[in-house]
Amino acid sequence: MPLSEFDLIDRFFKNALRDGPEVRCGIGDDAAVVTTPPGMDLVLTMDTLVAGIHFPATTSPEDIGYKALAVNLSDLAAMGAEPRWITMSLTLPQDPASWLEGFMAGFSILAEQYSLSLIGGDLAHGPLSITIQLHGVLPAGTAIYRSGARPGDRIYVSGTLGDAGLALGALDKRWSIDSKYQEEIFNRLNRPTPRIELGLALRGLATSAIDISDGLQADLDHILTASNTGAILNPDQLPLSDALRQLPADQALEIALTSGDDYELCFTLPAAVQEIEVKRLSAITPLHCIGAVFREAGMQWQRSDGSIFTPSGTGFRHF
Amino acid sequence: MPLSEFDLIDRFFKNALRDGPEVRCGIGDDAAVVTTPPGMDLVLTMDTLVAGIHFPATTSPEDIGYKALAVNLSDLAAMGAEPRWITMSLTLPQDPASWLEGFMAGFSILAEQYSLSLIGGDLAHGPLSITIQLHGVLPAGTAIYRSGARPGDRIYVSGTLGDAGLALGALDKRWSIDSKYQEEIFNRLNRPTPRIELGLALRGLATSAIDISDGLQADLDHILTASNTGAILNPDQLPLSDALRQLPADQALEIALTSGDDYELCFTLPAAVQEIEVKRLSAITPLHCIGAVFREAGMQWQRSDGSIFTPSGTGFRHF
Repeated sequence: MPLSEFDLIDRFFKNALRDGPEVRCGIGDDAAVVTTPPGMDLVLTMDTLVAGIHFPATTSPEDIGYKALAVNLSDLAAMGAEPRWITMSLTLPQDPASWLEGFMAGFSILAEQYSLSLIGGDLAHGPLSITIQLHGVLPAGTAIYRSGARPGDRIYVSGTLGDAGLALGALDKRWSIDSKYQEEIFNRLNRPTPRIELGLALRGLATSAIDISDGLQADLDHILTASNTGAILNPDQLPLSDALRQLPADQALEIALTSGDDYELCFTLPAAVQEIEVKRLSAITPLHCIGAVFREAGMQWQRSDGSIFTPSGTGFRHF
Repeated sequence: MPLSEFDLIDRFFKNALRDGPEVRCGIGDDAAVVTTPPGMDLVLTMDTLVAGIHFPATTSPEDIGYKALAVNLSDLAAMGAEPRWITMSLTLPQDPASWLEGFMAGFSILAEQYSLSLIGGDLAHGPLSITIQLHGVLPAGTAIYRSGARPGDRIYVSGTLGDAGLALGALDKRWSIDSKYQEEIFNRLNRPTPRIELGLALRGLATSAIDISDGLQADLDHILTASNTGAILNPDQLPLSDALRQLPADQALEIALTSGDDYELCFTLPAAVQEIEVKRLSAITPLHCIGAVFREAGMQWQRSDGSIFTPSGTGFRHF
């Protein structure tokens, strides 16, 4: 006899039901009840991952569990918020016990790292799909939006770009990855590091921020459009990993610009921010300045040798 | 060319993006930002509806849109919370424009009635599925839980029971419904009335509450188990509609006890609550007292003539 909804909750979710002083009521009632700390705003993000669309059908349940939480943490990082509570709805095929065990093992890595409480959700039968809502807090009025970039601001990205795209292309047999980079690169796809600590440090400094889920070009465009500005960018300053540099230079650049799933942050700092501040931020996650905000709309790409560069691709299209 | 995610949001969701003074940032950034009013707790409920599981594939998009919000409102009603903000993730087949138009028409009926703001969510391709998280507020510490029922409390239900089950059975050709009741009964299935006003009025009065989504027997059992109590109940006092009474008496009773989807409230009031208070509550939604909380575990069913009644079924099983 298959396990009931209550058996499944008891068996797989109990460890994640870490109550904190702010959780008045977690799973087990009609709704969860939490207390937001006084003077804090609430920050909410919801993401759905569908098998075969957002992850290859071959992805392990552990990796899916890790990544489902990582992508939501990444959204909160881009706002400068501290993550707190999770609600999760899982739509699962028949007899999901062994899948759930793996999924929750991956999920719990990040849930424990950030002391997150799973406070509610839903379980249903159906084609595999995961919806997570993550709730964070920040001091009232300090959220970092996409709309705050101003002409003259410097544009930064964290980490390296295109590694997740490199891994996806290898899965699709479009290229192969040197064996010494395999583990690192597949970790970048399956176990992205949400830049929470960087996001918290950017509060009060960054004029805008976004997480790179659809590709730098598409996501930076969201900042520029929301801020009613443009940008002058140098493609030679994009941070590329040694693994990505194994590909021909133009192809590597294209991947860095257009492939999604990196979950690095792209953000803008006023030119007046001191070098010592940037160094402090870089100590959290390595940062690279890739250009500057410009008053005219659009992105202009100019190489270090002065030549114009024209990117050809676009980012991940949801519809 | 199909509409992009952004086109879809612009075309179908803009009207629902009603900003209030508490919404600092709705759809369009990495996350939504809201301010919870000082002294209020936050109440969160998430429900997923999967096509073919939670609603028949023939259900109209309008009815699905209405019901998806109604079931979440019903959960907040059972907590005594005031509904405020919605996040919604929709997984939709190709070319969802006409479906979305109908869905949002149904959704907007309740969103407008309760001045709810749609503040975030996700759109993805895949098999039709709807996840809604509804966020409500109530004065800190006043939530009504399942666990507060005490021996001697009276057990009440709102409205009538079993009408949604009657409609489902008619869809499955298990029986037919007299034409004069058809519209009313299918409305009970497709357009359930969330008992928000009743839930608000129960705050400070009810010792426990739950919404009846899985059938009275299963849902009342949640209250009794959480409260570590039992109940003595009179099946003859269950409120049955004239439409349900068209079926043989035993069958009608069985449906009222075990069919889900009614979204009425079941709650307990201390015996000391005055008749005049109950009348005030009944003026919001008709109420029936169906029994009393008992110190011994389990449900004992005793008819008005003193004979013992033994229900045979159980509620909706999620897994």
